[in-house]
Amino acid sequence: MDGMAHQALPSNRWFVLSPLFPVSLGARRRQLVHLLQRIRLERAKIWRRSLEEKDTFGPILVPADKLWGAQTQRSLQNFDIGGERERMPEPIIRAFGILKKCAAKVNMEYGLDPAIGKAVMQAAQEVAEGKLNDHFPLVVWQTGSGTQSNMNANEVIANRAAEILGHKRGEKHVHPNDHVNRSQSSNDTFPTVMHIAAAMEINSRLIPNLKHLQTSLHSKSTEFKDIIKIGRTHTQDATPLTLGQEFSGYTTQVRYGIDRVMCTLPRMYQLAQGGTAVGTGLNTKKGFDVKIAAAVAEETNLPFVTAENKFEALAAHDAFVEASGAFNTIAASLMKIANDIRLLGSGPRCGLGELILPENEPGSSIMPGKVNPTQCEALTMVCAQVMGNHVAITVGGSNGHFELNVFKPMIASSLLHSLRLLGDASASFEKNCVRGIQANRERISKLLHESLMLVTSLNPKIGYDNAAAVAKKAHKEGSTLKEAALKLGVLTSEEFDKLVVPEKMIGPSD
Amino acid sequence: MDGMAHQALPSNRWFVLSPLFPVSLGARRRQLVHLLQRIRLERAKIWRRSLEEKDTFGPILVPADKLWGAQTQRSLQNFDIGGERERMPEPIIRAFGILKKCAAKVNMEYGLDPAIGKAVMQAAQEVAEGKLNDHFPLVVWQTGSGTQSNMNANEVIANRAAEILGHKRGEKHVHPNDHVNRSQSSNDTFPTVMHIAAAMEINSRLIPNLKHLQTSLHSKSTEFKDIIKIGRTHTQDATPLTLGQEFSGYTTQVRYGIDRVMCTLPRMYQLAQGGTAVGTGLNTKKGFDVKIAAAVAEETNLPFVTAENKFEALAAHDAFVEASGAFNTIAASLMKIANDIRLLGSGPRCGLGELILPENEPGSSIMPGKVNPTQCEALTMVCAQVMGNHVAITVGGSNGHFELNVFKPMIASSLLHSLRLLGDASASFEKNCVRGIQANRERISKLLHESLMLVTSLNPKIGYDNAAAVAKKAHKEGSTLKEAALKLGVLTSEEFDKLVVPEKMIGPSD
Amino acid sequence: MDGMAHQALPSNRWFVLSPLFPVSLGARRRQLVHLLQRIRLERAKIWRRSLEEKDTFGPILVPADKLWGAQTQRSLQNFDIGGERERMPEPIIRAFGILKKCAAKVNMEYGLDPAIGKAVMQAAQEVAEGKLNDHFPLVVWQTGSGTQSNMNANEVIANRAAEILGHKRGEKHVHPNDHVNRSQSSNDTFPTVMHIAAAMEINSRLIPNLKHLQTSLHSKSTEFKDIIKIGRTHTQDATPLTLGQEFSGYTTQVRYGIDRVMCTLPRMYQLAQGGTAVGTGLNTKKGFDVKIAAAVAEETNLPFVTAENKFEALAAHDAFVEASGAFNTIAASLMKIANDIRLLGSGPRCGLGELILPENEPGSSIMPGKVNPTQCEALTMVCAQVMGNHVAITVGGSNGHFELNVFKPMIASSLLHSLRLLGDASASFEKNCVRGIQANRERISKLLHESLMLVTSLNPKIGYDNAAAVAKKAHKEGSTLKEAALKLGVLTSEEFDKLVVPEKMIGPSD
Amino acid sequence: MDGMAHQALPSNRWFVLSPLFPVSLGARRRQLVHLLQRIRLERAKIWRRSLEEKDTFGPILVPADKLWGAQTQRSLQNFDIGGERERMPEPIIRAFGILKKCAAKVNMEYGLDPAIGKAVMQAAQEVAEGKLNDHFPLVVWQTGSGTQSNMNANEVIANRAAEILGHKRGEKHVHPNDHVNRSQSSNDTFPTVMHIAAAMEINSRLIPNLKHLQTSLHSKSTEFKDIIKIGRTHTQDATPLTLGQEFSGYTTQVRYGIDRVMCTLPRMYQLAQGGTAVGTGLNTKKGFDVKIAAAVAEETNLPFVTAENKFEALAAHDAFVEASGAFNTIAASLMKIANDIRLLGSGPRCGLGELILPENEPGSSIMPGKVNPTQCEALTMVCAQVMGNHVAITVGGSNGHFELNVFKPMIASSLLHSLRLLGDASASFEKNCVRGIQANRERISKLLHESLMLVTSLNPKIGYDNAAAVAKKAHKEGSTLKEAALKLGVLTSEEFDKLVVPEKMIGPSD
Repeated sequence: MDGMAHQALPSNRWFVLSPLFPVSLGARRRQLVHLLQRIRLERAKIWRRSLEEKDTFGPILVPADKLWGAQTQRSLQNFDIGGERERMPEPIIRAFGILKKCAAKVNMEYGLDPAIGKAVMQAAQEVAEGKLNDHFPLVVWQTGSGTQSNMNANEVIANRAAEILGHKRGEKHVHPNDHVNRSQSSNDTFPTVMHIAAAMEINSRLIPNLKHLQTSLHSKSTEFKDIIKIGRTHTQDATPLTLGQEFSGYTTQVRYGIDRVMCTLPRMYQLAQGGTAVGTGLNTKKGFDVKIAAAVAEETNLPFVTAENKFEALAAHDAFVEASGAFNTIAASLMKIANDIRLLGSGPRCGLGELILPENEPGSSIMPGKVNPTQCEALTMVCAQVMGNHVAITVGGSNGHFELNVFKPMIASSLLHSLRLLGDASASFEKNCVRGIQANRERISKLLHESLMLVTSLNPKIGYDNAAAVAKKAHKEGSTLKEAALKLGVLTSEEFDKLVVPEKMIGPSD
Repeated sequence: MDGMAHQALPSNRWFVLSPLFPVSLGARRRQLVHLLQRIRLERAKIWRRSLEEKDTFGPILVPADKLWGAQTQRSLQNFDIGGERERMPEPIIRAFGILKKCAAKVNMEYGLDPAIGKAVMQAAQEVAEGKLNDHFPLVVWQTGSGTQSNMNANEVIANRAAEILGHKRGEKHVHPNDHVNRSQSSNDTFPTVMHIAAAMEINSRLIPNLKHLQTSLHSKSTEFKDIIKIGRTHTQDATPLTLGQEFSGYTTQVRYGIDRVMCTLPRMYQLAQGGTAVGTGLNTKKGFDVKIAAAVAEETNLPFVTAENKFEALAAHDAFVEASGAFNTIAASLMKIANDIRLLGSGPRCGLGELILPENEPGSSIMPGKVNPTQCEALTMVCAQVMGNHVAITVGGSNGHFELNVFKPMIASSLLHSLRLLGDASASFEKNCVRGIQANRERISKLLHESLMLVTSLNPKIGYDNAAAVAKKAHKEGSTLKEAALKLGVLTSEEFDKLVVPEKMIGPSD
Repeated sequence: MDGMAHQALPSNRWFVLSPLFPVSLGARRRQLVHLLQRIRLERAKIWRRSLEEKDTFGPILVPADKLWGAQTQRSLQNFDIGGERERMPEPIIRAFGILKKCAAKVNMEYGLDPAIGKAVMQAAQEVAEGKLNDHFPLVVWQTGSGTQSNMNANEVIANRAAEILGHKRGEKHVHPNDHVNRSQSSNDTFPTVMHIAAAMEINSRLIPNLKHLQTSLHSKSTEFKDIIKIGRTHTQDATPLTLGQEFSGYTTQVRYGIDRVMCTLPRMYQLAQGGTAVGTGLNTKKGFDVKIAAAVAEETNLPFVTAENKFEALAAHDAFVEASGAFNTIAASLMKIANDIRLLGSGPRCGLGELILPENEPGSSIMPGKVNPTQCEALTMVCAQVMGNHVAITVGGSNGHFELNVFKPMIASSLLHSLRLLGDASASFEKNCVRGIQANRERISKLLHESLMLVTSLNPKIGYDNAAAVAKKAHKEGSTLKEAALKLGVLTSEEFDKLVVPEKMIGPSD
Repeated sequence: MDGMAHQALPSNRWFVLSPLFPVSLGARRRQLVHLLQRIRLERAKIWRRSLEEKDTFGPILVPADKLWGAQTQRSLQNFDIGGERERMPEPIIRAFGILKKCAAKVNMEYGLDPAIGKAVMQAAQEVAEGKLNDHFPLVVWQTGSGTQSNMNANEVIANRAAEILGHKRGEKHVHPNDHVNRSQSSNDTFPTVMHIAAAMEINSRLIPNLKHLQTSLHSKSTEFKDIIKIGRTHTQDATPLTLGQEFSGYTTQVRYGIDRVMCTLPRMYQLAQGGTAVGTGLNTKKGFDVKIAAAVAEETNLPFVTAENKFEALAAHDAFVEASGAFNTIAASLMKIANDIRLLGSGPRCGLGELILPENEPGSSIMPGKVNPTQCEALTMVCAQVMGNHVAITVGGSNGHFELNVFKPMIASSLLHSLRLLGDASASFEKNCVRGIQANRERISKLLHESLMLVTSLNPKIGYDNAAAVAKKAHKEGSTLKEAALKLGVLTSEEFDKLVVPEKMIGPSD
């Protein structure tokens, strides 16, 4: 056991053996071990400015300058996975602040001591504002219910509330479970903060940025409405359209993307709070669930309601799989748009060259015309990651067991990752690319008039066979349609110019 | 060239070299080759009962008993991928029947000869009814625009319409392009039939079967509403709930799944028809798009409308990525439900054993109690495939270029595959499993009363520490809570029975 | 019960109620029901030419012209999912033929009656040759262990072997379980046929077709080795390379793809046979597993061995997840190659136009120069589907429980689907596209010489600043580098021609 | 333009307008704008302690305490995506240190000034050791070639080398391009560091941790080799096996996982360095590629070689898609193992309860027996994320264009994420779970002997029919097999005990 316990110790961390640990040694030896540990513990307190905290597993040291407690500390030691980059996303921490504030508020209605309640609300508000982020060290890869992050929130808020009331942290004047977590369970708080965090990010980051992108694309569509260009299907030359029409397709894709996200919100606004451990609401009072949803709605200004069925709300995260599906669709849309823009902007000499993309950084020190479509690249990379996260969320969402899905932190983290990336990248793409796109009118016109498919317009006048002969001759000889037509003598220069009018090819006829 | 052409020939097929084929041989040799081909061709006609058809690539032989023409035949030869199992799904074929019927109807308003128009409508109706399925041999893995399947439909309907009018096939009395495909392009017809087929399958197969499943789960939820059982979180024993509550979670998941699909329909009901080659509507008349959507709506009794933006409708298939996202969510839900049911039904002796699943086939010849949860297995396999198809559709949907997405047949096929499997498997699961599930009341009760977590009820009376001592003693000694409580002398038998009442643990308190 | 049984009946199928079915009616009513059923049964036998078969669930009617028995029939009725397209893939059926032949051979060594053993071998050989495909009607979406397809094989082979020996089918002169399935369990036969089928398809279809593609790409690489062209990075003009070098990258991708598949074979060649129900080999004799693997190896000429660990071989299908990962990598490679080829072949006037792709079918009736890259389209659609199937296989592979993974038929079907599609599409792409690709030398040369990046060569002579000025002037004025250089007077025409030599830019310097 | 430029400014950042920016205003107004900017710039220098740096886009301010330069700064401003969590992963930064050190070493052989070369080597060594991590602020979501991170490395190393040589940063005594990036291009350095980083992480983190896990599982397999337990197939009771056999399956899965990763290394060890911009090696000397690969191999002690084909190495990242496929397979394996362990450890009273998992933290404050399988949960969440990242990598890998794949940073980041998570979670799972697993021998034995399938052993003695009758009676009456057998009088108590011996059921017979 000794060896094992030793191996189990992260070498650079303070540590206390649990007295509950099954020890199969003689009593003497055990006493010795405990004595040595006690010495180590006391030494560590002095050297490392740590405090001793306790939970049902026994005492454990936590850093003296942190507000978290024993359960947080234990998680830190048991889940050394991924490092600091993998910490629980900030929107979840902030949502815990909001939820705990609302819970205290509602609990006061049900009898929580107002002095403590108000202090909890104040401490929770600080969490909601991101002021205590440094006190949330836990990573995503922990208990699948998010219990340890819930306890992290409870411990930090309890200690901070105690401070506000003039008590010392660790004394549990304000109790993490009895006061901060009152009428709650990790099993309902974590899904609740997942929904709060996602709904807030959707409303504050994703939707506004997508709307800006839509507006910007729409402006371009209007700006380019008279520029007639060659169409391309199968990547091959086809009949013409306007550049504005082309951009109207992109605009529509983004607009529908917004609609798609909006469609998922009714289920995202449903909060699990009040379900407690398994969905029954054991240890809550009737009405608690409705009141707390109302409080969160008021606090966030978003139309949260209590979940119709708490069993579904704990055991599954279909609302997240669904929302991720909407983001996945948006990723597919943006991938298409960004691909088109970089290909239409390819060149400057040997590509399609129809668009001039803004220069944001040196593409190459020697070639002034070389502009790399870097914003398209960042965006399409984001799209690929969003598609990947979607699969992660789907796998996690499908693997719940019985009364609880235990992929919660991963699902939350992956969805918020997608949300953040999509929102930020849309903004960056809009600001640093779309807004500055210019049409290379000369090039567009040149390609259009060199194209062979304008021959379609001759059919009514000279018949299909003659038109085909003109096209074939032009293709074979590398000449223009007009040259070929004149050579073949099927019509005059004036007739050709009157018939071949791309402007008449960009819509249905009367 | 000779060698190459030879290699290019599928050995077991009739074949005609295109005269357009770029030939870099001397004229004599070319004449010889053509002569030999002509002989081969004539011989094949006699031996294989084939007919000669032509397209702009030249003559080609097609089987005499089939209604398809040259372009279909050429695709058959050029895309020998996957075999018969990979044929274009039947709902697409039928949707072509519907679309071509409606197109003929609307085209008559715009001047199509009524005699021909009516014959086309009649032939198209036969396609819509699945009567001509054998004449649609093309596989999914063809041109990415679905052009060849559109031409297959045009050729079959033209030949059949010609027959109806007393003409021979191949004579082009009814012309595949000029009559059947009038005012249309593959680029707008194929997305149109994709939407028609998907919307019809959703409405006729998926939604009804999900509703039956929801109803059946709801019945079980009601049937089991008084059966109190142990809850399980983290797969570990937790506080109790009713079996009815557990099933209410499943019911809600399926119900929301239906809502999710319904949310996607507004974009699925938008038809690309009228966009023709690149979305501009070139070669159609104003109003054609609205009229044809109305005709399809009338024919199918579904609220189809013309797509707001035809450029988006041709260049992207976001509506399919979105719908697939809804199916993916349903797959995640059903995976969870089926997993729970098979685990709750595990046993008969060494599992959880709370549910008795219907026996549909011999599980094992020696163990009468062994019932394999085969319906759960079929359903979860379907769910995995649907998740996979979703990725395929996403990849295809994100890879469009310019005016046309050319992953259309794959996207259509994969989505219809998911739709069919989800619909059928839901029905099979409902009929052969859910409907017949029985609760093993004895087992459920036994587990519930053996459970240690009922100790929670003692807290108010004997305090946390005593309650914990009772639980620990029971766990250590493998005894019941009551035995432990009596041994410890913390309360009487009557007091225990009064306090430990699972019925009071399944909801919030007043 | 009556109602339920009635609902459970597929309306268009013959059916016999199992006497084991839990009946909660009075004895009289039950007798009546049975009587009516007996009448229905007898009538059906006469009308539908069905036979009565039995299993431990009781009697059931099967079509008289089919070799399958009761268990197959029951599965048909219980799993009405997906229709005929979803039948178990043919390579699995054939592999069952091989396995059952080898099992009979080895079982004769362990005491199986040689007369029966030989008949079984002969019947199994017919299955292996695909002669009895029509007798395998079951779909993929059945029991997750593939039990029903194993029983289908046992029943068909037993009945056919009985016929060979002059007995009637149904008499069980040759017994499906005792003779054909001797020393076997579905739980080891199904993973065994999965491995046989996949290994055979890999060796006979995928690898050869990829090798042809590699060879063809390599030929092009050699053919194009002297054609210098503009390079493109970020889709933008870059320094030159040869078209041969570009194709050498594609060749390497395909070559490594073959290596990747080869790397997975050591685990694919491991057969589960001999593990029986849970991996222990209960009911087999020592050495059976080694002998049967050797027999399969001899029969297939592939180096199959018995699995090192049968528990892994039944409970997981990591070998399939791994192989699918290799196919997924190949799909990513081919997607890239096909995308490049269609973009390089875009045009004819308004695209890049560096490659001339073979014309296989009319792209458009009016534009002779329009060649749609249809083979690229079919191939990239296949790649998307393979990526999707990979996710399905991963989800299925990760969801095994205890001693058995029950996603077997889906995993098998999805992998074989990917294999078939990748193999066929590679062949089609090679034959109908790659082989006929021609370089548009004129266009390539024109683009190369118009490009601005050749200015790089001037640096050593005129210095970076002057070179940059030349490039900027050319870009601004739309002129050639030479024109700009001469105008700026930084060097003479002769000097320019001597310095700007793309041939010197396609490799490291000495 | 003014407005646009204004909007383009991140409000809280110092900024300088590029003089190259296309300005369509009158000259006067332009002068005014420049004047104001100059004032702003100078003010910012004073207030924010920034320095002015320049690139071909003009001057820009960078923080005075940072070593990065203009191009890094510009990227920071242009790619405000995801925040600090999204910074380029540390293994990439360190690999840049290694590469730049080796490049300086080899460049000295080719004529680089030794004084500068040595300073560069020293500075690069500091980067390789992670000492300068704070100077690498760029996020993953930047240029898809990773150019900006390459320039970040060049700038930091150049400035640091200049400092070492007693010069000031910004003076370019050591030049980022001419010295640090000599003979290199972002297009070959970035793929090179991707391969270095991944290969090092695989060898130092993933493989060792998987080996520990394999060893630990193997120890358990040995420890449990005599514990006979009930097998479970379809989640239902089946024939017995030993707990050691069950764990041997897990051991094999992990062992093969290691083999799978090893198989991918030959392609991972190939370095793109020497390909420069498009793969041709322009601007390098012959032999440079081989020498630098050798230098990296020596530096890292890993068998790196120069890539056979540099065109493939820049334009595709199939090696990453392949490696990710191996990780995906490992994820599927670990998901299965962790699922089994949590289900076998479910309980304590109402689950399977065969395993006792170590207690690492309080599961619940009231139920001492409740141990949540939190390590299984963290691990399975990691597995889901790895599966998702695999899709992201596949999508990125398949979307390269022409000579360059521009999803490089995302592919690198996602793969390194998977690597880190899999490695760390395997270690955590081994240390905090597997190592401490104990068998609940009593429970295992109880379940085994209650099971009905031991009846199989009676077949030879009393015949199938009698054995079935015994099993049915036991199942119906809820009794043991022995009780049923004695009641039916088919054998004596002694006979039963002699026949029903699970120990004889765990392997093939002689």
